[in-house]
Amino acid sequence: MISNSEIKLITGLHRKKYRDLHNLFIAEGEKLIKDLLKSGAQLTHFYTTEPIQPTDSAPSAIAPVLISERQMQKISGQKNPSGWLAVFKQPKNTALDEACWVVALDDVQDPGNMGTILRLCDWFGISHVVCSLDTVDRFNPKVVQSSMGSIARVQVHYVSLDQWLDAQTKPIFGAVLDGQSLTKVIWPKQGVLLMGNEGQGIRPQRARYITDHLSISGAPSRGAESLNVAMATGILLHQWHLNQ
Amino acid sequence: MISNSEIKLITGLHRKKYRDLHNLFIAEGEKLIKDLLKSGAQLTHFYTTEPIQPTDSAPSAIAPVLISERQMQKISGQKNPSGWLAVFKQPKNTALDEACWVVALDDVQDPGNMGTILRLCDWFGISHVVCSLDTVDRFNPKVVQSSMGSIARVQVHYVSLDQWLDAQTKPIFGAVLDGQSLTKVIWPKQGVLLMGNEGQGIRPQRARYITDHLSISGAPSRGAESLNVAMATGILLHQWHLNQ
Repeated sequence: MISNSEIKLITGLHRKKYRDLHNLFIAEGEKLIKDLLKSGAQLTHFYTTEPIQPTDSAPSAIAPVLISERQMQKISGQKNPSGWLAVFKQPKNTALDEACWVVALDDVQDPGNMGTILRLCDWFGISHVVCSLDTVDRFNPKVVQSSMGSIARVQVHYVSLDQWLDAQTKPIFGAVLDGQSLTKVIWPKQGVLLMGNEGQGIRPQRARYITDHLSISGAPSRGAESLNVAMATGILLHQWHLNQ
Repeated sequence: MISNSEIKLITGLHRKKYRDLHNLFIAEGEKLIKDLLKSGAQLTHFYTTEPIQPTDSAPSAIAPVLISERQMQKISGQKNPSGWLAVFKQPKNTALDEACWVVALDDVQDPGNMGTILRLCDWFGISHVVCSLDTVDRFNPKVVQSSMGSIARVQVHYVSLDQWLDAQTKPIFGAVLDGQSLTKVIWPKQGVLLMGNEGQGIRPQRARYITDHLSISGAPSRGAESLNVAMATGILLHQWHLNQ
C-alpha cells in the first residue's frame, strides 16, 4: 500500500530541488538497496512488487511494502523498473580530510561517469571527492545507481572549485592531453587528482592550478581520439594506488 | 525522402538476424557517422532531420537525405534521436593475426561494455578481439555507439572460445579475483588477455586455459566489491601498454 502523498513525495525526488528540500534520495534495485543498508544509509521508504519469502532474511528491520507494478511505474525513474525502490536520508558529509589524496571534478556532467568515479574511489580507497558547483548532483538516481552503493561510503563535497584549488598547498595532478607519461610520475603522500568535463576537459581557469600534468599514452597508430573521463580516472587511480 | 521499403529495411537492422542477412549495420549521431566514414566504412543510406548548410564540407561524397522528425523516430533506436542516422556495410574482418596480443571476451553481454572495450583496444593498439559465440553482437547499435567508431578499426572475431583457447601456444592472461598483483607481471611479446562476463567472470571451462592469473588490487578497506569489466580491461591494457 502506498499513499498518494508518498507517490507525490517520491516522484518529486527525481528532481534535485526536492531531494535537497526533503534531504532524501532514491535508490532502485534490490542489490543496490541492500548494499546501501549494509553501509548504514538510513531508510525512510521501501517498496517492492515482489512478494517477500518468509525465509528471506532482510538485512534491515524495515521490510519493504508490497505495491502493484502500476504503482511502481509511477514512482520509478526507470523505463523497466527493477521492482525494488527505496528512499534514504542523504548521509551527512564528514569534514573534508585535507591530509588525504582527494579527487577533484571540474564539471563532470554524465551521471554514469560520476557514479563510476565514486565506485573507483571506493575501490582504490579515496574517501573524499571535491566537485565544482556545476558537477552533476551526487544524489541523482543515475549517479546512485552507477555508484553501486559507493555513494554511502565516499564523501562528495560541492565547493567553489577555483577558490578551493587556489587555497591548496598540496600538488595538483591534472589529466590533460599533452602531459607527462605515467611511468615518470612520482606520487607524493598527499595530493589532488583533478579531472575535467566530458567534452572540454579541465577548464582553463582551473587548469592553471595544475602543478603536475599527466597523460595516458595510447598506441601511436591509435584511431580513438580520447578515453572517457571515468576510464581515465580508473587508470590514473590504479597507477596512483600501485605507487602508494 | 525515405521510402517505406527503406524504413522496413532499417527498422529490421536493429535486430541481429536482419543485420546478418543484409550484411549492414546502423550508426546514429553526426560525430560517429563522420568517424566511421573517415575510417573507410562503406555507407549505404544516410539520413538527417537537420537541413545541411552549403558551407558544411561533408567528409563523404554522399550527402544525407533530409527526412522528417517523425520518420527519424521510426527508424531510430534511440528514445531521443540525435537527428543523424546512417547505414553501413559490415566491414569484412581481416584474418586474425596470431602474432599480436589479442583480447578475448568470454560472454560479455552489455553492449556499452563491449563498445568501451573496442574503444580501449583501439586506443592501446590492440587490433584483434576474439569473442565467445554468446558475446554481444559487435554490430548491435549500442555497441557501435559506445565504440565511438572503433568498430571500424578493431577486428572482432566470433569463435568457439574453448577450441580457440585450447589451440593457443601463447600465454593466456586472465583477470580473476585472486590473481597476482600487476606490479609483478612480466608481459611477453605475444599473449592473450581473457576477460569474463559482467556477472560471473570467466567461466570455469575457459578459466582452466589461463596461464597467468591477474588481479587489480584495491584498497584493503574498500567497500566496492568489484570493478566493471570494461574498467578492468582498461586498467590491464594500460599496464600492458606501459610495459611494451
